[in-house]
Amino acid sequence: ADAAAGKAKAAVCAACHGQSGVAQIPTYPNLAGQNEQYLVSALKAYKDKQRNGGQAAIMQGQAAALSDTDIANLAAYFASLPAGGK
Amino acid sequence: ADAAAGKAKAAVCAACHGQSGVAQIPTYPNLAGQNEQYLVSALKAYKDKQRNGGQAAIMQGQAAALSDTDIANLAAYFASLPAGGK
Repeated sequence: ADAAAGKAKAAVCAACHGQSGVAQIPTYPNLAGQNEQYLVSALKAYKDKQRNGGQAAIMQGQAAALSDTDIANLAAYFASLPAGGK
Repeated sequence: ADAAAGKAKAAVCAACHGQSGVAQIPTYPNLAGQNEQYLVSALKAYKDKQRNGGQAAIMQGQAAALSDTDIANLAAYFASLPAGGK
């Protein structure tokens, strides 16, 4: 996976999950330093509309536009950020 | 919410999510320092079987045994732990 490509794709994520992967809105999860494999699994579950409840409808819409490569790259990028932000 | 009560309830969580809320198994998410409201929302979505995909079946089983108070307390506990572990 290509974290740099993930970063390029991550601009839209920042609106809810924060510029550094630390969400400014408490209903959204922090992503910084999250496990890469978990992030892939979560994004696929949103894309496949398996994950519902909470704010899932928003993420289903976002993930629908992502290829498997995009998902892998985004997961690598957010996993690479320091947990808790810098 | 009562983080101390959450800690008392969190022993079973540690098997997958780590003693300090940092998962040892890469398919599981870190919980330390995660947003409290998000954790409540995620646990409720598992309990209500709205959240599927990935390892969700395990969490559906775990969350089924939790009251709303348990969920609030667990969320408060994991949110209180330092992101990335100590």
